[in-house]
Amino acid sequence: MKFCSQCASPLVLRIPADDSRERYICEQCGSIHYENPRNVVGSIPIYGDQVLLCRRAIEPRYGFWTLPAGFLEIGETTSAGAIRETIEEAGANVDIGPLFSLLNVVHAQQVHLFYLAQMRTPDFEAGVESLEVAMFLEKDIPWQDLAFPTVKQTLEWYFADRAAGRLDHRDSITVHTRDVLRSEKI
Amino acid sequence: MKFCSQCASPLVLRIPADDSRERYICEQCGSIHYENPRNVVGSIPIYGDQVLLCRRAIEPRYGFWTLPAGFLEIGETTSAGAIRETIEEAGANVDIGPLFSLLNVVHAQQVHLFYLAQMRTPDFEAGVESLEVAMFLEKDIPWQDLAFPTVKQTLEWYFADRAAGRLDHRDSITVHTRDVLRSEKI
Ligand SMILES: [Zn+2]
Ligand SMILES: [Zn+2]
Repeated sequence: MKFCSQCASPLVLRIPADDSRERYICEQCGSIHYENPRNVVGSIPIYGDQVLLCRRAIEPRYGFWTLPAGFLEIGETTSAGAIRETIEEAGANVDIGPLFSLLNVVHAQQVHLFYLAQMRTPDFEAGVESLEVAMFLEKDIPWQDLAFPTVKQTLEWYFADRAAGRLDHRDSITVHTRDVLRSEKI
Repeated sequence: MKFCSQCASPLVLRIPADDSRERYICEQCGSIHYENPRNVVGSIPIYGDQVLLCRRAIEPRYGFWTLPAGFLEIGETTSAGAIRETIEEAGANVDIGPLFSLLNVVHAQQVHLFYLAQMRTPDFEAGVESLEVAMFLEKDIPWQDLAFPTVKQTLEWYFADRAAGRLDHRDSITVHTRDVLRSEKI
């Protein structure tokens, strides 16, 4: 960030009054330009015993498998964003369920939120950001070819909870939370 | 947003290739300037039967009572942000607990996240953004003078869960989620 988005003047990095961190400040118009982490919202689309995954057609992690997910947009709720991404990336219509996982990815300046989701039909279709989309039984999940630690961790939590019967009552789902380290590899 | 923060050229509002929404685009350097909702992270600081609240010394809602909360910063996790805000606004040191509520406030372009928190001692002190800080029993909560719908809703959920014994086992806390409408008044 080099120039003020309001008046095009050069920005300086300085701690404003009553603040404790350096911010990009415009000394011309007085604007303070804050930067904050962004939310990535996605779903765990379920049909019977199977989970829907997408193979990425974009960087980062081109060619690796992911749950449908993307940046939360202005004007939508976190669950609406998860539904939208599931349609856009996987062509699947889901009934969105409860929040299931929240993972902080500090080094990427992101918070990842995944919702349980029921596919209404077994229909799906790769969107422009997906090379292919497929449904997987637990034993067939491509664990070595997953795109992100948050996806791997969410799938691990999902199958563990399902095996333990913890997903049987929608009103008592326990949300899983964890912080992901930069050093984590798939 | 009027000028490119990278090169100071005027921005245009246009839908990029492979996108479905208008974005602020710089035709000079090619930068796309995305805007996304921000996270507000806070805590429900508990000491015995009491909850700690802060009376706001800043707009919006100057003079009204709130749970300690503020914008998530780059470089911190959601729970670390909740701890920081509790120190900054209320001078209270807490052991942060599980995530308790997630509320979408779409019209404010915000997602609010509140964590359960245990105060280590009954000590607190108003920070620069608070006029005063005080501990309240449930019967003394200033319901008519709360700052935000998300704070009121989170406190209602907290006292309902406490009364029902649902907070006794830290490993089985159910996260509450709701979307807040623009029309909601305290
Ligand atoms: Zn300016
Ligand atoms: Zn530019």
